[in-house]
Amino acid sequence: MEKREQLYEGKAKKVYATDQPELLVVSYKDDATAFNGLKKGTIEGKGVINNHMSNRLMAYLEKKGIPTHFVEELNERETLVKKVTILPLEVIIRNLAAGSFSKRYGVEEGTAFSMPTIEFSYKNDDLGDPLLNSYHAVAMGLATQEEIETIKKYAFAINEELKAFWADCGVILVDFKLEFGKTADGTVILADEISPDTCRLWDSQTKEKLDKDRFRRDLGGTEDAYAEVMRRLEEHLR
Amino acid sequence: MEKREQLYEGKAKKVYATDQPELLVVSYKDDATAFNGLKKGTIEGKGVINNHMSNRLMAYLEKKGIPTHFVEELNERETLVKKVTILPLEVIIRNLAAGSFSKRYGVEEGTAFSMPTIEFSYKNDDLGDPLLNSYHAVAMGLATQEEIETIKKYAFAINEELKAFWADCGVILVDFKLEFGKTADGTVILADEISPDTCRLWDSQTKEKLDKDRFRRDLGGTEDAYAEVMRRLEEHLR
Repeated sequence: MEKREQLYEGKAKKVYATDQPELLVVSYKDDATAFNGLKKGTIEGKGVINNHMSNRLMAYLEKKGIPTHFVEELNERETLVKKVTILPLEVIIRNLAAGSFSKRYGVEEGTAFSMPTIEFSYKNDDLGDPLLNSYHAVAMGLATQEEIETIKKYAFAINEELKAFWADCGVILVDFKLEFGKTADGTVILADEISPDTCRLWDSQTKEKLDKDRFRRDLGGTEDAYAEVMRRLEEHLR
Repeated sequence: MEKREQLYEGKAKKVYATDQPELLVVSYKDDATAFNGLKKGTIEGKGVINNHMSNRLMAYLEKKGIPTHFVEELNERETLVKKVTILPLEVIIRNLAAGSFSKRYGVEEGTAFSMPTIEFSYKNDDLGDPLLNSYHAVAMGLATQEEIETIKKYAFAINEELKAFWADCGVILVDFKLEFGKTADGTVILADEISPDTCRLWDSQTKEKLDKDRFRRDLGGTEDAYAEVMRRLEEHLR
C-alpha cells in the first residue's frame, strides 16, 4: 500500500489517498480547536494518543460485532482506514448531563440519566452544527430512515461496550460523539475517531475531567490527562 | 357553571377557575408577542378570531377521534375547557420549511418535505424554548415514552385532518405548534389553541402569509389576514 496525495485537511486530522481506491490514510495532528473553531491551540502528543486510542477501541468494537473503518495502524500518527462517504450527522450519546446539554436545558453537569440519550446534529460549520432530530435528517435527505435506525442501534451498542470498558479503567464515559460513513456498497460503518477529543471521560473516583474539556475550559494539564487515560486503556488491554 | 378567580395570565390568554374543579375558563386577549416576548403589540380582534377558530377546529378534530380540552364556547372571547396539566413540550409539525427551521438548517422557506416532520421544544422561557428530541424529553422527565408516542400519533393525525381541511379553504398548512395536557386520570388530550397565532397558513394560490408572521415580520395587514382565514373557515364549515 502506497500513500498518495492529500485529499482533505480537517481540524485534527489529514486524509490521504492510497494506491487502492477503497483505502485511505488518516494522519492525526496535535492541533486542537473548540467552539466551532473559535478557539485554537495545540495539545502536545495528542495526535499520537488519539491515533493509538481510536485504533484500540475500534479493534475492540469490531470484536464485539460493530463494523468500523479501522484497517491497520501504520505508524504512531497514521492509520489505514476504509474509504467511506461520511454521513453529515454528528451522533452524540449521553449518559450524564454535561456541556451543551447542561447549558441548553439548564440541567446541572453530572446529572445521570436513567437511560442514555442519543441526539443528532447537522455537520455544517457555517450553521454551527445545529441539533436536529431524525425526522429533520430524513426530510433534509441527510440519511434514510433505515440508515438512522442502523446508526441508533450501533451507537447504543457502542455505548454499552465502551461504558463497561471505561468503567474497568476507572473512568466514567459521560458522553461522546460518533460519525458514521457509507462504504461503496452502502454499508453503514463507524468512522472518524474515538478519543478524548470526542468523548467526555471523568475519573470514576475524583470526577476529574480527563478529556478535551481541559483545553476548552482552560483547566490546564490537558497533555497529562490524555496520557493518563491512554495509560489506563493500555493497562486494561494488556 | 360559575367563573371564579384568575389562575394565570399568559401572553395571549387568561385562565380562570370555575366552580367545577375539572373545568376552566380560557379568555383570549388581543395581545401579541413574538421572539420569546421581545416584540410586543396588539392585533385588534385577534382574541375573538382565535377563540372562534380554535373552538371550531377542536370540535372538528373531536369528530375525527382526537380528544381535546374543548367543552363549550361561552362568549366571543371565552371558552370552557377541561382542566389539564400542560406537558412542558411544544410540539411542532412541519409540512414545508419556514421560520426557525429555515434559519437553523439553511433550507429555503417554502421547501416541501416528502414527509411531515415533528419536533419538540422544551417550554421554558428562561432557556428560550430550546429544541429537544424525545430521548431528551424522557431523560429530563418532561414526559414518559408512552406519552411521547401518544402525542406523536395525535399530532400526525391532526396534521392530516387540518392539512385537508385548510386545503379545502384554499390555504396551505405550512407548520403549526400544538400543546398537550393530561387530565386528572392521566389521559393525554390536545389543549392550548389552534389559530393563526400557532399555525403558518399561506394562501394556496398567491402564497400570501395569513398568520402571525405578518406581525412578526412587520408585513402589515395582520388584522385583515386573521379575518380572511376566519371567513374562509366559516364558509367551509357552513
